[in-house]
Amino acid sequence: MSNDKQFVKEITPQGEDFSRWYIDVIKKADLMSYSPVRGCIVFKPDGYEIWENIQRELDSKFKETGHRNAYFPLFIPESFFQKEKEHVEGFNPELPWVTEAGGEKLEERLAIRPTSETMIGHMYSEWINSYRDLPLLINQWANVVRWEKRTLPFLRTTEFLWQEGHTAHEDEQDARRETMQMLEVYRQFAEEFLAIPVIVGQKTPSEKFAGAIDTFSIEAMMKDGKAVQAGTSHYLGTNFAVAFDIKFLDRENQHQFAHTTSWGVSTRLIGALIMVHGDDRGLALPPKVAPTQVIMIPIGPPKTREQVIGRVDELYAELKKAGVRVKVDDRADQSPGWKFNEYEMRGVPIRVELGPRDMENGQVVLVSRVSGEKKIVQQADFVQEVQNLLAEIHQQMYDKAKQFRDEHYIAVDSIEEFKTFLETKRGFALAGWCGSNACEEHVKQETGATSRNIPFTPSETKSTCLVCGEAAKHTVVFGRSY
Amino acid sequence: MSNDKQFVKEITPQGEDFSRWYIDVIKKADLMSYSPVRGCIVFKPDGYEIWENIQRELDSKFKETGHRNAYFPLFIPESFFQKEKEHVEGFNPELPWVTEAGGEKLEERLAIRPTSETMIGHMYSEWINSYRDLPLLINQWANVVRWEKRTLPFLRTTEFLWQEGHTAHEDEQDARRETMQMLEVYRQFAEEFLAIPVIVGQKTPSEKFAGAIDTFSIEAMMKDGKAVQAGTSHYLGTNFAVAFDIKFLDRENQHQFAHTTSWGVSTRLIGALIMVHGDDRGLALPPKVAPTQVIMIPIGPPKTREQVIGRVDELYAELKKAGVRVKVDDRADQSPGWKFNEYEMRGVPIRVELGPRDMENGQVVLVSRVSGEKKIVQQADFVQEVQNLLAEIHQQMYDKAKQFRDEHYIAVDSIEEFKTFLETKRGFALAGWCGSNACEEHVKQETGATSRNIPFTPSETKSTCLVCGEAAKHTVVFGRSY
Repeated sequence: MSNDKQFVKEITPQGEDFSRWYIDVIKKADLMSYSPVRGCIVFKPDGYEIWENIQRELDSKFKETGHRNAYFPLFIPESFFQKEKEHVEGFNPELPWVTEAGGEKLEERLAIRPTSETMIGHMYSEWINSYRDLPLLINQWANVVRWEKRTLPFLRTTEFLWQEGHTAHEDEQDARRETMQMLEVYRQFAEEFLAIPVIVGQKTPSEKFAGAIDTFSIEAMMKDGKAVQAGTSHYLGTNFAVAFDIKFLDRENQHQFAHTTSWGVSTRLIGALIMVHGDDRGLALPPKVAPTQVIMIPIGPPKTREQVIGRVDELYAELKKAGVRVKVDDRADQSPGWKFNEYEMRGVPIRVELGPRDMENGQVVLVSRVSGEKKIVQQADFVQEVQNLLAEIHQQMYDKAKQFRDEHYIAVDSIEEFKTFLETKRGFALAGWCGSNACEEHVKQETGATSRNIPFTPSETKSTCLVCGEAAKHTVVFGRSY
Repeated sequence: MSNDKQFVKEITPQGEDFSRWYIDVIKKADLMSYSPVRGCIVFKPDGYEIWENIQRELDSKFKETGHRNAYFPLFIPESFFQKEKEHVEGFNPELPWVTEAGGEKLEERLAIRPTSETMIGHMYSEWINSYRDLPLLINQWANVVRWEKRTLPFLRTTEFLWQEGHTAHEDEQDARRETMQMLEVYRQFAEEFLAIPVIVGQKTPSEKFAGAIDTFSIEAMMKDGKAVQAGTSHYLGTNFAVAFDIKFLDRENQHQFAHTTSWGVSTRLIGALIMVHGDDRGLALPPKVAPTQVIMIPIGPPKTREQVIGRVDELYAELKKAGVRVKVDDRADQSPGWKFNEYEMRGVPIRVELGPRDMENGQVVLVSRVSGEKKIVQQADFVQEVQNLLAEIHQQMYDKAKQFRDEHYIAVDSIEEFKTFLETKRGFALAGWCGSNACEEHVKQETGATSRNIPFTPSETKSTCLVCGEAAKHTVVFGRSY
C-alpha cells in the first residue's frame, strides 16, 4: 500500500483547488487530451466509452417514446440564421464560417451548426403537408460547434457531441406535452442512470433558448456548489414554423403552422458526472454508466498464483454471463496495492479481491469504491452479491449527492443573506423574484449567480423578491454555474 | 391489386434508366431528402436506420478485435496537411475551409476533416512513448466532408458518415497483419451481413490512398455493372509517423517510428446495398440489415377483422420475443393490396399474411420479398419458419448477387475484347497488366474503366498486358465505378 499516498498526492485535493482537481482527475484517468484546435478536446477511449453508455441508454428511451433518428447536414447557409430574429442574435457571435471550399470562394457563407433548428425547420417545411404527417418525432446524434470564449474539458468545448430532438405537432397542447415528456425522460435518466439528483423547472426569460417560447431544464449541483445545466427541453411555439414555413392542412382542411419542440443533452454530462461524484481519490462512476463495473484482482504469493487466477477466471465468466461489465487485472508486474489505487482513481464501482485464504474458505472480497467497505461473501452467491452491491452503490451515490446538494441549498429572503451564504458555504439559494430583468441582473452583478430555473416543486414558496422586496412572482433557484 | 401497377409505374425500370431507378427508389422508400447545401443529403429515419444496423454490427466486430472508440476534432489546422506531401496533394482540392469564427478572422485556416490521419497522427505522437503503448487500436465514428464535383445520394455526398480505424504498431509485420485483419472483417461483413459478394485485393499505385504504402479494398458490382469500393484498409508504413513524429522506445531502448494503418467504410454502403439487391419493384433489403425484417398484414372482411388482428398480435409477440424485427400494419384505411406493394417497395424481406381461412386451418402465409414465393406454414411452427426463411433469404440474395456478378465478370486478353464486352454486356474484366501507369491510363481513356484492384484470388492468371501485350506483372480487375 506504499503506492497509496504517492497516487493520491498527484491529484490536487478538491478542498485545495477544485478546478485543478478536475483537470488532474480527467487527465490521470485518461478520459481526454487537449487537441491542437482551440477549445476542442479529444475524447479518449475511457472518456468516450462513458458517452457510448449514455447514448445507448438515452437512445433506447427516445425510441420507446416513439422517436426515430435521422441525420441532417453539418453546414447551415447564412441566410437560414436570418430567418428567426432571436435565434440569430443568440448564436451569431459563436459561429464558425466556411467561406472557401474546393478551391473556390463560396457565394454564400456556411455556418457550422451550433444547433439544427434552422436546417431541420427548412426540411420539415418540405416534409409536413397534412395533420397526418404529425407528430413528427425525430432525434439526431451529432457534433455541434460553438466558438466559446472560455472553455473547459467536457463542460464547455468548442466542438461537442450531443443529441438534439426536434419534433413538430398539430397544436400547442401536444407540443407542450412532448416538451414535458422529454424533460421527464432527462430527469429520470439523470437520477436513475447517472445518480445525479436534479432540480426540474422552467428557465427565466433571460436564460431561455434563443428562439424558444419556454425553456425547461434540469440543474445539477457540482461538489464546488456550482450548477451544471444537465439537459434542456424547449417549447418553440410557432416561432420556427413561421420562420421556415412549416404549415399543414389540419383536420378541418385549414392551413396551420406546426408547433415545434427541441431538446438536448450533451457530452457536458461527462463533466457533470465527474464533478458530482468524484473525490480526492479520483473518479467515482455510478454503476449503470461505468464502462467497467467490476475489476477483479487476484492476490497472494507466486506459488498460489496460477490456482487463484484459475478461480478468478471462473468467477469472471459467471459475472460476464450475467451481463456485468467486468475485467480482470492479473498482471504480474504490478502490485495489488498499485492496482487498488489505480482502479479507485478510475472510479470502478466494485473491486473484487481473491487470494489463497479466500480460496480455502470458498469466499471472495468485494470492496465498494464509494463507501470503501469490504464485504466478504460466499463464492456460491458471487453474482447475486455483486448485482446487489451495484444496486446499493447506485443508491448510495445518489443519496450522497442529494445530501450534499440539500446541505448546500438554502432558502434566502434577501441578497445579503445569499451573499453571506456564498462566502461561507457555497451552493444554491431559493428566493422570491419579482420577475424583473433588473432584479435578476442585480443578483448576477452582486453574487456572480444566475437564475438556474423556476423549480416545479420548490421546498418552499417565497413571497417577496430578494432584491427589491416587492411581491414575488416566482420562487427561483439562483447559483453560480459552469 | 389495382394499386399494383400504379405503384410500379412510379419507379423507372432498371433496364430503362438505372440512375433514375436509383433516385426513384431512394425517394419513394423515403430513405433521404436533398438538402439546401450543395451535395449534402438528409438521412431520413428509414435510411438512417440502415446505417444504425451497419454501425451496431461493425462496432461489435471492431471491439471483438480489440479496438476501442474515441473522438477527435472536426477541425484540422492547415499546417497539418502540409506535413505529408502525398496526403496534401490528394485532399487539398476537396477541402472546405473555416476562415472566420466567433466574429474574427482566424490566424490559421481550419479544414473540415476529409479523414483524420493528420489529427490522429498528431495526437498519437503525444500518446505513444514506449513499445508498451503499442499496438494502439482506435476507431472513430464521425462525419467527414469532401467537396466533390459530382455527387450522388449515399454513394458520393459532400458530407458523409463513416468509421475510420487508426492503429499504430511496433513493426511492419504487425501493422500489415492488422491491415489484412480489418480487410477480412470488411469482407465478412459485406458478404455475411449485407449479402454482397466482394472482390478482395490490392489497389494499384495510382488508385491507392493519398499517403499510404499499400491500399487494399473490397469491390462490389452494382446491377448496372459498375463498381462500388465498399471498404478500404491501408498500410501507411511510417509515412505519417515520420510526418507527425510518432516515435517510441522499442524493446532494445532504441527510438523507432511506429507503423500505422487506417481503414474505413462509409454511408456509401447504403447506396451499394440498394444497387446490388434492388429491383423494379423497389428496395430489397437483406434480412440482417433490414430495419424491419417481417411485416404482418391481417386480411379478410370487416366481420372477422378483430379476431384476425387478435391472432396477428399474438404471433407478433412471439416473433418479437425471439428477437425478430417485426411490425404489424393493421390500418383499416389501406387495402391489403396497397400494403403488399408498399412493403415490397420498401424491401421488407418477409410479408406475413393472416386471414380468416388461415385462422380456421391454424396456418399462416409467409411471402419472400426476393423470390415472391408463398409458403403456408403451421402457426405452431411460426417463429422457427420465419427464422429459417430469413436465413434462406439471406443466402438467396447473396447467391443471386454473386450469380449476377459472375455473369458480368469476364477474363479478357485485349482492350478491344474489353470494349466489346462493355458495349454488349457491361461489368468487370479480369486482365493482365504490365504495371505501367501509361497502360492503366490508356484503359481509362478508352473504356472509362479504372483498375478496381489486384484480386488476391483471381479466377485465372493472365500473362500479358491487355494494352501493350508485354508480360503482365499483375492480373487486375477493371471496371467503371461510382
